[in-house]
Amino acid sequence: MTKLIEYEEASDEVRAVYDDIRATRQTDYINNFWKTIANHPTTLQRSWQTLQDIMKSPGELDPLMRELIYIAVSVTNGCEYCIASHTAAARNKGMNDAMFGELLAIVAAANMTNRLANGYQIPVDEQFKT
Amino acid sequence: MTKLIEYEEASDEVRAVYDDIRATRQTDYINNFWKTIANHPTTLQRSWQTLQDIMKSPGELDPLMRELIYIAVSVTNGCEYCIASHTAAARNKGMNDAMFGELLAIVAAANMTNRLANGYQIPVDEQFKT
Amino acid sequence: MTKLIEYEEASDEVRAVYDDIRATRQTDYINNFWKTIANHPTTLQRSWQTLQDIMKSPGELDPLMRELIYIAVSVTNGCEYCIASHTAAARNKGMNDAMFGELLAIVAAANMTNRLANGYQIPVDEQFKT
Amino acid sequence: MTKLIEYEEASDEVRAVYDDIRATRQTDYINNFWKTIANHPTTLQRSWQTLQDIMKSPGELDPLMRELIYIAVSVTNGCEYCIASHTAAARNKGMNDAMFGELLAIVAAANMTNRLANGYQIPVDEQFKT
Amino acid sequence: MTKLIEYEEASDEVRAVYDDIRATRQTDYINNFWKTIANHPTTLQRSWQTLQDIMKSPGELDPLMRELIYIAVSVTNGCEYCIASHTAAARNKGMNDAMFGELLAIVAAANMTNRLANGYQIPVDEQFKT
Amino acid sequence: MTKLIEYEEASDEVRAVYDDIRATRQTDYINNFWKTIANHPTTLQRSWQTLQDIMKSPGELDPLMRELIYIAVSVTNGCEYCIASHTAAARNKGMNDAMFGELLAIVAAANMTNRLANGYQIPVDEQFKT
Repeated sequence: MTKLIEYEEASDEVRAVYDDIRATRQTDYINNFWKTIANHPTTLQRSWQTLQDIMKSPGELDPLMRELIYIAVSVTNGCEYCIASHTAAARNKGMNDAMFGELLAIVAAANMTNRLANGYQIPVDEQFKT
Repeated sequence: MTKLIEYEEASDEVRAVYDDIRATRQTDYINNFWKTIANHPTTLQRSWQTLQDIMKSPGELDPLMRELIYIAVSVTNGCEYCIASHTAAARNKGMNDAMFGELLAIVAAANMTNRLANGYQIPVDEQFKT
Repeated sequence: MTKLIEYEEASDEVRAVYDDIRATRQTDYINNFWKTIANHPTTLQRSWQTLQDIMKSPGELDPLMRELIYIAVSVTNGCEYCIASHTAAARNKGMNDAMFGELLAIVAAANMTNRLANGYQIPVDEQFKT
Repeated sequence: MTKLIEYEEASDEVRAVYDDIRATRQTDYINNFWKTIANHPTTLQRSWQTLQDIMKSPGELDPLMRELIYIAVSVTNGCEYCIASHTAAARNKGMNDAMFGELLAIVAAANMTNRLANGYQIPVDEQFKT
Repeated sequence: MTKLIEYEEASDEVRAVYDDIRATRQTDYINNFWKTIANHPTTLQRSWQTLQDIMKSPGELDPLMRELIYIAVSVTNGCEYCIASHTAAARNKGMNDAMFGELLAIVAAANMTNRLANGYQIPVDEQFKT
Repeated sequence: MTKLIEYEEASDEVRAVYDDIRATRQTDYINNFWKTIANHPTTLQRSWQTLQDIMKSPGELDPLMRELIYIAVSVTNGCEYCIASHTAAARNKGMNDAMFGELLAIVAAANMTNRLANGYQIPVDEQFKT
């Protein structure tokens, strides 16, 4: 396990990101993901900026839908940390038990049909190529 | 490549599913996925029923959102057929270029942070466990 | 694409493996997998020896069953070459259409339940740990 | 972690599946997989029905072989719960230590050659395409 | 397949990235990756910036080593485009056939032992945790 | 969890490998990976021999670089044991915090762009095919 960098011991460049996290989320709590990747400050800066861009910038998809997509990927990859943190985030944005159940049912079925397509080596229909 | 089972040569049990696909989709066209898995009729029946259930049954998530989740999984797994067919389906349900771009940006970023969490072996925060 | 090393141009150490492949399989045909990895002779030697060991050595699992397991992995990983070559090998060892259909149905379902277990973060039962 | 639904607190539709699990397996014990996915009753019903179909319906592959295939997929995906539960199931159906060792050796080797095929971008032989 | 955005038809913000790619690489050629993700300009900008940061910024790892790591990931994921493009990039930076052979042998072996560790559910040694 | 085979109870063929591990590493400590796969002695022998070949044989890549490649694969696959053991090995061979940070940043970015290439189904440039 990599050391968690606490706010008090952080360098100035790390602290600047922590300050932004705290201000954006309106809480002093900084979760372990950020406190760990802070061991490589440029990764911290880039990851935080990337997540702000894709999860918060104006766009077609609403914030909850973005979280559900994030969970779909994390479940497919089996990333325990990401499943836990983004499930919590999705609940904060309004995900209820029924939505979570529907989400996982779709993720599970897609993983199933992905392998049927692989296994039978199904050729892509011409009409799907355009 | 596995043989595609055409409607005319299909057994009665396969034809029953094909009839349901045609009626549901209001088109005679049956895409290669179904024509291939028809080589194992129980897989055809179960897969069609499963997809109807998860993609069409009443629920919290709207049809377009369900397709986006399907694409997120298929892209993560690199399933060419599923990406092509579900991208087409999503466009039919209203996905525009901006939505597709946002979707892939989220999928890409989630795959990135999933590996940061793996690589640093980040412990799950207590507050995410409840 | 990496160059295919033909028998006639192969070095002595590569040719020794090719000779063994031909003798073992009772055919002059050497498939592209071996002709490609021959670009790194120690990989060729080790891979051929490993496959002989796991697929042909005396053991509890019969040769067809071993091929089905190989396909299950290759389908899950989406490896086109490996699916094609091991499906051909399995057919040579007696796999019929029904078996292939059953195999893929199991592979598909396992990929489905794997993600339900991930997504719900299901704790392992005590009785499964012993 | 998602709440485990115990029999006593289950809804009628969940209890019907639990009753079928108990009758089929001749034990009152219901493992955590079912008690968790019971949070989404249609997922519970469909998953139980699917597993009955693919693992128990008459066919070419014997029950133990089906479990080994299930394990091969779960190991490739790194699904801890599924490895634990299906290894236990396979042992109940006769898997001994030697079989398990052979199984994992094949799974490991297939994952190895899958990446050699990917990395060298090996073209599929014409004879494997028919 | 998504439309490729050519320089001549690109918006100003896309063209600015294209100009930077051309200047950095000392060539007018822009490969399909950039011409495709240009359909979502913020993804283009962020991805180009990210790759510049991780592949070109001063650091401990030399440019060739960074490419080999990139290939290792792409081969494990089976991403055909990324394998092709980063293998070409690595060759431009000095990768010879022997290095490529060694790289793939390591990637293959790691994928093998990863599954042995999964399958046997091997507990992490205390000394590896600190 | 599979039983760990201790030196004292090991068969002669397992003990021979353990002796080689101890002599090679100049320590009596044998980590859990080997003590577990010793349950299938041919897997133990082959895996140890393979790792010696790919990690220690003379070649173009230095020992530390080989470890970094090993970690890149293990992180992409999410193999906890392998990440922990090879991170420890890499540190013994000189990996410092900055290198580890750079490594993970590259692994993360490669996983990101792999999915952009998948999702947009980007055609491989002709110049990358030769």
